Amino acid sequence: MRYCNTERLAIVPQGGNTGAVGGGVPIFDEIIVNTSNLNRIRKFDSLAGVILCDSGCVLEHLDNYLAERGYIVPLDLGSKGSCQIGGNVSTNAGGIRLLRYGALHENVLGLEAVLADGTIIDGLSTLRKDNTGYDVKQLFIGSEGTLGIVTGVSLLTPKRPKAVNVALVGLESYENVQSAFLRAKEDLSEVLSAFEFWDARSMYYGKALGSKKFRVPFEREYPFYVLVETSGSNSDHDSEKLGHLLEGLLEDNFVKDGVVAQDRTQYTNLWSIRESLGEACGAPVPIYKYDISLPVPVLYNIVEDLRQRLIECGMLGPHGPVSDVVGFGHIGDGNVHLTVFAKEFSPKVKSLIEPYVYEWTSQYQGSIAAEHGLGIKNSEYIGYSKTPAMVNMMRKIKRMLDPSGILNPYKVFHDISESQPTQQ
Amino acid sequence: MRYCNTERLAIVPQGGNTGAVGGGVPIFDEIIVNTSNLNRIRKFDSLAGVILCDSGCVLEHLDNYLAERGYIVPLDLGSKGSCQIGGNVSTNAGGIRLLRYGALHENVLGLEAVLADGTIIDGLSTLRKDNTGYDVKQLFIGSEGTLGIVTGVSLLTPKRPKAVNVALVGLESYENVQSAFLRAKEDLSEVLSAFEFWDARSMYYGKALGSKKFRVPFEREYPFYVLVETSGSNSDHDSEKLGHLLEGLLEDNFVKDGVVAQDRTQYTNLWSIRESLGEACGAPVPIYKYDISLPVPVLYNIVEDLRQRLIECGMLGPHGPVSDVVGFGHIGDGNVHLTVFAKEFSPKVKSLIEPYVYEWTSQYQGSIAAEHGLGIKNSEYIGYSKTPAMVNMMRKIKRMLDPSGILNPYKVFHDISESQPTQQ
Repeated sequence: MRYCNTERLAIVPQGGNTGAVGGGVPIFDEIIVNTSNLNRIRKFDSLAGVILCDSGCVLEHLDNYLAERGYIVPLDLGSKGSCQIGGNVSTNAGGIRLLRYGALHENVLGLEAVLADGTIIDGLSTLRKDNTGYDVKQLFIGSEGTLGIVTGVSLLTPKRPKAVNVALVGLESYENVQSAFLRAKEDLSEVLSAFEFWDARSMYYGKALGSKKFRVPFEREYPFYVLVETSGSNSDHDSEKLGHLLEGLLEDNFVKDGVVAQDRTQYTNLWSIRESLGEACGAPVPIYKYDISLPVPVLYNIVEDLRQRLIECGMLGPHGPVSDVVGFGHIGDGNVHLTVFAKEFSPKVKSLIEPYVYEWTSQYQGSIAAEHGLGIKNSEYIGYSKTPAMVNMMRKIKRMLDPSGILNPYKVFHDISESQPTQQ
Repeated sequence: MRYCNTERLAIVPQGGNTGAVGGGVPIFDEIIVNTSNLNRIRKFDSLAGVILCDSGCVLEHLDNYLAERGYIVPLDLGSKGSCQIGGNVSTNAGGIRLLRYGALHENVLGLEAVLADGTIIDGLSTLRKDNTGYDVKQLFIGSEGTLGIVTGVSLLTPKRPKAVNVALVGLESYENVQSAFLRAKEDLSEVLSAFEFWDARSMYYGKALGSKKFRVPFEREYPFYVLVETSGSNSDHDSEKLGHLLEGLLEDNFVKDGVVAQDRTQYTNLWSIRESLGEACGAPVPIYKYDISLPVPVLYNIVEDLRQRLIECGMLGPHGPVSDVVGFGHIGDGNVHLTVFAKEFSPKVKSLIEPYVYEWTSQYQGSIAAEHGLGIKNSEYIGYSKTPAMVNMMRKIKRMLDPSGILNPYKVFHDISESQPTQQ
C-alpha cells in the first residue's frame, strides 16, 4: 500500500466480488487487491459471543463455524456462499435478518484496516462498550474500500435460535401489508426475524428466471405476499405467538390465506420463493434494478408510479420494450428492490426511468442506495439522498485519509481520481 | 457558531449536565451553549417506530411520550430525569438496556449537527438502511461535542414490552456469575433485557449512601448478586422462561437463592437495590470511580487485584485511608464500575490506583472509558485503550472539522486548545 501510494498507483480492494453496484471491480488500470487468502478465524469467545477473524472469511464458512458452537452470524445474504465478511463490512451489507439482529454499525465491535499510506489501524476490540475517543471504525463500515482496506473484523454474534418458524400469507393490497406489519411487530415483537414482501409479478419472474423450484401453497393468486419468520429460544412459545398473529390477521381480513411451514421441506419451499426473486434479478436478461429505501407508507407507490409512467408513455405492454415493473423486499427495513424487466435495453426507456426514480426517492427523503451501496453504478447520484454539506464532509474525509486518491477511485464519488490512472 | 469560530472563542456544548467525566463543563473561559430550550418533539412515525426530536429533549420526557404510543426509548439511564438525548448521543451513553436494544450507533438513524464553522449537517434520515456514501453521523456519536453540536436526533424506537419480569439471585463466586450469564443467554435469549451484578460491599454502600429504601429478600448475605430482567410480548411465556432458568441455576448450584418479583412493589424494590449503587457513587464522600470494560472472564479480577494491592500497601483497613474497593455493573456488556470508597482524598492513595487501573485494563485490551466517555477526567489516558495510529486518525478528524479548536477544548484530547482561551 505504501509503495502504491508513493507511486500513485490506484487500488481496488476486492473480496468475494459479489457486490451489486460494481464497488469491487476496476474501471481502468487499477490494481486488484483481493482478500480471499486472508481467511483465518483468529479467535472465538463463547462467553461474550465475539468472533475475531480475517476479512477474507466467507460469510457461510463463518456461520457454519458458529453453528457448531451454538452461535449465529448476525447477517444473512443471498450471496453468503461466496461473499466475504470484509466486503460485507465495507458495503455495510443489510440482508434479511437486519430486522432482528441490527446493522453492522452495531455488530462490528472492532476492525483492523490498512490506510492508503500503509498505516495499520489496529482497532480489533472485542468490547461492547468503549467510549475512548471517536469511533473511527464506523468510517470504514460502508465506505466501500475508498478509505482503507479492511483486513480483520471482530463481530458480535448472538446465540443461534433454537426454534425458527416461517409463515406465508396472501394479501389483497399494500395497505394490508402495512397493517400486517404493524400487527407482527405487536404480536411477535422480540421473535420477529424477517418480514419480507413481494408482488405477484415478482413471483412470476422468480419462477421463470430463478433456479429454485418452489410451490405456492395457495389455491388462487394474490396481489401481494408476505413471508414472516420468527427466531427464538422456545418453539412452543414462538408457534403460539405466530398462530395468534395469523388468526388475528385472517379474522380482521388483513390477509386472505396463510400457511405455516410444518417441517424443514415446507420451510425451505417458502424461503425458496423469496430467494428466487433475488435470483431473477441476476438473470441474463435486460433488467433495470434499483435498491431503494423509503418510508414504509410510500414504499410501494414508487413501483406503481413508475409502472403507470411507462404504460402512459407506451413503453410497458405487449408491444412495448418493457415487460414489467415489479417490487419486493424488506418491509421491516423500508427497503424495496424496484425491478424493471425489459425485452431489450433502450436509451428511451432508461431516460424515462432515470432520473425519475431518483427524484421520486429524493422527494420522500428516501435513499437511492439502501443496502447495496453506491459503487460505480450509483456514485453520481449521491446528491439525491445527501445534502451538499454532507457530501462535502465526506469529500474532506476522503481527502484526509487518501490524499492521492489511490483507493478505489470513481467509487462513492464518481469524480475522485486524483491518481489519474491511464485511460485504456 | 460562525462568529465564535471567526473570533476564536471556545464553546462548550451542554445538555442536562449529567455527564460523569466533565464533558459538558467549561475548563477556563469557554462559552456554554446549552441545548435545554431545543426541546420539541418534531415527528413520530408509529408504523416504522421512528421519533424525530430536538437534541434538548429530556430522556424521560421522550420515554413518557413514547409510552403513550406503545413504544420505548431504547436507552435507560439513572439520570433519565434530567439528561438530554443530544447529550446521550454525544456521549454514546450505554446504560442498562444496551444488552437488549443495542447501542446508539445502531439506534440513531439520523442527526442534525452544527459544525464549528456554522455549517449545518442536515442528516435527519428516518431510514434504517441508507448506504449513500460515508455514515458521517457516526462521528458525532460519542465525540462529546468536540466535532459539532447535535441539534436534532432521529431515533429508532422498539415496541414497548407488554411484559417485564425481574429476578434477584445470590451467588457464591464470580465464576458462578459467569455461568449464570451464559445460562441466561441460552434460556432467555431474545427476552433478556438486563443482567446486572454487584458484590456484597457495593450493596452496603448503596444502603448507606443512596436515597432509595430497599429490602434484600434473602435470609443471609451472598458475595455476589445478579438482577435478571426479561422484557417481552407475552407475560406467560417470559415467566416460564425465567422460571426455567432459575430452576436450572438452583439445581446446578450456580445460585444459592433467588426470588422473582410478584408485583410492581417487589419489582421496584429489586431495581432500587441496583439503582442505589449508582447513587452511592454520586454521594458527597471521597470516591475514586472508574468506568471500565473488560472481557467478562477477568471483569471482576480488577476489583480483587486493586483491593489486594491497597491492603498490601496498608491503605485499606480499619486504620487506612481507604474503606473499600467494590465493583458492580453490566455483565452483559462487560462493563464494571470499579469504585474505591475512601475516608479522605490522598495523593498517596491516588498514586497507588492510577495508573495501575489503566495499565491493568490496557493489559487485557479493555476500555478505560466504557460508557461515560473521556471528557476532561480521562482525556489524558486515551493511549491506554487506543493505539497511536488510531489517536492520530482522531486528531486528524478533529483538525479537519474544527481547525481552530473552538469546540469543547481539553475534552477527548487534553492538549487540544488551539483557540488559546485566556487562562483565569
